[in-house]
Amino acid sequence: METKTLLTDCPDAMGLISKITNICYKHQLNIVHNNEFVDHAHDQFFMRTELEGVFNDETFLFDLDRALPKGSHRRLISSERKRIVIMVTKEAHCLGDILVKAFDGTLNVEIAAVVGNYDVLADLVEKFGIPYHHISHEGLSREEHEAKMIATVEQYSPDYVVLAKYMRILTPDFVARFANQIINIHHSFLPAFIGAKPYHQAFERGVKIIGATAHFVTNDLDEGPIITQNVIHVDHNFSAADMARSGRDVEKSALSKALGLVLDDRVFVYQNRTVIL
Amino acid sequence: METKTLLTDCPDAMGLISKITNICYKHQLNIVHNNEFVDHAHDQFFMRTELEGVFNDETFLFDLDRALPKGSHRRLISSERKRIVIMVTKEAHCLGDILVKAFDGTLNVEIAAVVGNYDVLADLVEKFGIPYHHISHEGLSREEHEAKMIATVEQYSPDYVVLAKYMRILTPDFVARFANQIINIHHSFLPAFIGAKPYHQAFERGVKIIGATAHFVTNDLDEGPIITQNVIHVDHNFSAADMARSGRDVEKSALSKALGLVLDDRVFVYQNRTVIL
Amino acid sequence: METKTLLTDCPDAMGLISKITNICYKHQLNIVHNNEFVDHAHDQFFMRTELEGVFNDETFLFDLDRALPKGSHRRLISSERKRIVIMVTKEAHCLGDILVKAFDGTLNVEIAAVVGNYDVLADLVEKFGIPYHHISHEGLSREEHEAKMIATVEQYSPDYVVLAKYMRILTPDFVARFANQIINIHHSFLPAFIGAKPYHQAFERGVKIIGATAHFVTNDLDEGPIITQNVIHVDHNFSAADMARSGRDVEKSALSKALGLVLDDRVFVYQNRTVIL
Amino acid sequence: METKTLLTDCPDAMGLISKITNICYKHQLNIVHNNEFVDHAHDQFFMRTELEGVFNDETFLFDLDRALPKGSHRRLISSERKRIVIMVTKEAHCLGDILVKAFDGTLNVEIAAVVGNYDVLADLVEKFGIPYHHISHEGLSREEHEAKMIATVEQYSPDYVVLAKYMRILTPDFVARFANQIINIHHSFLPAFIGAKPYHQAFERGVKIIGATAHFVTNDLDEGPIITQNVIHVDHNFSAADMARSGRDVEKSALSKALGLVLDDRVFVYQNRTVIL
Repeated sequence: METKTLLTDCPDAMGLISKITNICYKHQLNIVHNNEFVDHAHDQFFMRTELEGVFNDETFLFDLDRALPKGSHRRLISSERKRIVIMVTKEAHCLGDILVKAFDGTLNVEIAAVVGNYDVLADLVEKFGIPYHHISHEGLSREEHEAKMIATVEQYSPDYVVLAKYMRILTPDFVARFANQIINIHHSFLPAFIGAKPYHQAFERGVKIIGATAHFVTNDLDEGPIITQNVIHVDHNFSAADMARSGRDVEKSALSKALGLVLDDRVFVYQNRTVIL
Repeated sequence: METKTLLTDCPDAMGLISKITNICYKHQLNIVHNNEFVDHAHDQFFMRTELEGVFNDETFLFDLDRALPKGSHRRLISSERKRIVIMVTKEAHCLGDILVKAFDGTLNVEIAAVVGNYDVLADLVEKFGIPYHHISHEGLSREEHEAKMIATVEQYSPDYVVLAKYMRILTPDFVARFANQIINIHHSFLPAFIGAKPYHQAFERGVKIIGATAHFVTNDLDEGPIITQNVIHVDHNFSAADMARSGRDVEKSALSKALGLVLDDRVFVYQNRTVIL
Repeated sequence: METKTLLTDCPDAMGLISKITNICYKHQLNIVHNNEFVDHAHDQFFMRTELEGVFNDETFLFDLDRALPKGSHRRLISSERKRIVIMVTKEAHCLGDILVKAFDGTLNVEIAAVVGNYDVLADLVEKFGIPYHHISHEGLSREEHEAKMIATVEQYSPDYVVLAKYMRILTPDFVARFANQIINIHHSFLPAFIGAKPYHQAFERGVKIIGATAHFVTNDLDEGPIITQNVIHVDHNFSAADMARSGRDVEKSALSKALGLVLDDRVFVYQNRTVIL
Repeated sequence: METKTLLTDCPDAMGLISKITNICYKHQLNIVHNNEFVDHAHDQFFMRTELEGVFNDETFLFDLDRALPKGSHRRLISSERKRIVIMVTKEAHCLGDILVKAFDGTLNVEIAAVVGNYDVLADLVEKFGIPYHHISHEGLSREEHEAKMIATVEQYSPDYVVLAKYMRILTPDFVARFANQIINIHHSFLPAFIGAKPYHQAFERGVKIIGATAHFVTNDLDEGPIITQNVIHVDHNFSAADMARSGRDVEKSALSKALGLVLDDRVFVYQNRTVIL
């Protein structure tokens, strides 16, 4: 007996649930959890099906492909632990949260390596027996620096790259190599305060709520598909520095929740948004 | 073309989704929304299916009944507006919220009447052109008073009875007549502070969070199946009276959200808990 | 014995609390609540002091003025009920919430009148025995329409003007006549989604949180000092219309909370932000 | 120039703020932050004053003691980093959060040691260069085990003892030795679900909110003064195990927030409740 997750994403049509679940039934696969969603604005169907049984992937997918309409995507994903590489700059809180959650099993993930453009976090990472690569950007062009970063990340063949407060903007080349695989945490409730120093922007605007947004990275800065958002209330007592300090817990919980959803194969990306089933 | 909602609740078995959706497909009913849940602890299956099409209720239900296992419950519910009777004592906030939400269509409901054991809210209710019945409990035994309440409520044949801060305990007879049809708002996050004066209890305990719980009424005081809960943060500045004042918005939003879920046929009651699909 | 609130706002200096509370003590005024705040970025001092006793306003303020540094503002406010005029367009939820809260005393306020550019809410307002002025903008220039609005509002000499989903932009002339007296509710967590159709903007961006912002109105659209903000989580199931429907409770609670703070004389406006004591 | 915090706690009387701030002024101490609270139910006055200047503790406190009424408590606390000992059983999340927050300076604290009745967390603690004491309870009476725990904790003379999911009940002797110095995290929103297995209790009751409570430990199980509470929404999809998993972030943020408040000398304990200034 194995557990696998089937993700289906296709143009909507009458009878889709029936067709897909019939095939599961025919293959004697038990449906442990099933969630579907139809985007009626775009007539697009999404279904996530957790299955249990003895799988013959080839015949199962063959049957599915015959049943599904044109333009369908389906993936059958085994329940193996996924591998990530984390990219950081200087801040420890998001990184530390993921390290502890991987350590105690809250996140079912293998942290293959951490790569940073400073070395201040090397010590923390190495405490956990994980390799830390310090790739300084000093004296390098953006392209040269990224070429080194990419080479380092790629040697681990990660399923996902997690930007845990990595404070540099990625080039289109980097983004293209890991399409819908790079998860970033931005320290504002997007689309408010795009770009640099969002807590300073928030302070200047006098907001009463600050937040954080975990999203997939695209080439448009802070414009990628949002996975999770989290906020806390602030008041006039908060300086920009206080907001940054209080925001740490907000950032880390938004990021690790998003990462958990992605690792559980719950996140579809569609029309620059996410469907989470 | 009509829209109806099918609620299915039965012992879990392999192929249930497939069987039910096959029948929908066979009857050329389009699935607008579908949500299911399996309680693996009790092996119980729940499904809510919003259907669109031309219905032949008889043949559709006949096909379903043949397909479903023993011990199944299924209901096919038309999208007609439901009718409620509201019971109150003296406080206006929950009542007022439902009145305004029925007035502007936020809640798709007909308020047939309001019944109160005081007359202080008669004026507010009559502003909205809704009959108010003042049935004082003074000089009456509990049984006599309830007999009058029941007679008044029953003449409207309500789908649901909403206790919008009705501050008296119902007898088993009353509860039995409207099983799983009476929705109450209790002004604490149950099971904390069961019974009388929960804000005073909360103040005495020095809590930093207060809340409200909307639940179906059973014969065990404040022990019925919970539909929604809502909380706010408080601090040492709050007296019990301040908590009560601030709690009003928490109570009314928990109650009207619960009522909205019930009116949309989203709430299954099972094992003294709710499954909300 | 009377209760009054002293609001002090001046450049920071050593000994201010001592000086002000000495004067209160000298006048035998008991301090019921006292809150102060120093904006260290701008060296500005704020204090709100609730006083109880027998007041000689003239000598008390004379003493204060001698003690406070240059550039100070101080106001001694009696606890009389304040008067508001509400401006609306077509939506009932924010208006209805304030009507019910004034009715049951949750808000200590006199609603002098409601003015709307449509007549759909006249019926609701008149249920509460409050005058409704329908001033249609049709066939009028913006200036002509506003001249009528201003004339109508001003006849009530309101302490505050509450825009309860009034969907037109005010001219600088209107804003100037009621500086820091106009409270608006905007249906987004500003500064996200400034301007028209914020829920559509939110839906398009695929956010996981929607919100509302109550703020004082200035001449910069949606840029005025923020008083309160409130949010709820949403997901892919929410269409723009669903967001708008769910947002109603968020809007009304942000607005009525802001109004309550303003009516309690808790809100200082400073540097386009609010200090709430 | 130094910074110190003055905490004053005394029966309420007219002129207290004036008297205390006069003395600060006389000593040329600048008030950086000042917060006060009067519990009108018990006529008790609380004030927290952050002061900056050149301190002569002796004469300053002498002046204060002459000015304050009988039954006053006042403490002048230097801004030195405080020292804690953490007690644990098997769960890593609360401990890990405090370790990372001490590492990156979010919490200004010295973790002197960690003491656990199992050894599973030794490895994590030692990564951070902090001594771990494994004191198994096996084969020991409760008194014998606690005697060993106390001896180990006391050798570090901690300012506070933090129970980061320490799953054993302390004896009155232990509690007495560290009165108002022991901070516990309980995994429910107290007073709901006192005692063992709160997530199982929550699951059985079918609640829609789960929470965590950080509180000072007294001899009444889970009845001590509450410092912080935190909650999240759950639904029918959550098993008791899911609640426990999701609850980890709630627990750790409630605990570390409470710890931060205590370390900043913001928490007064009074009448089995906390006043947080």
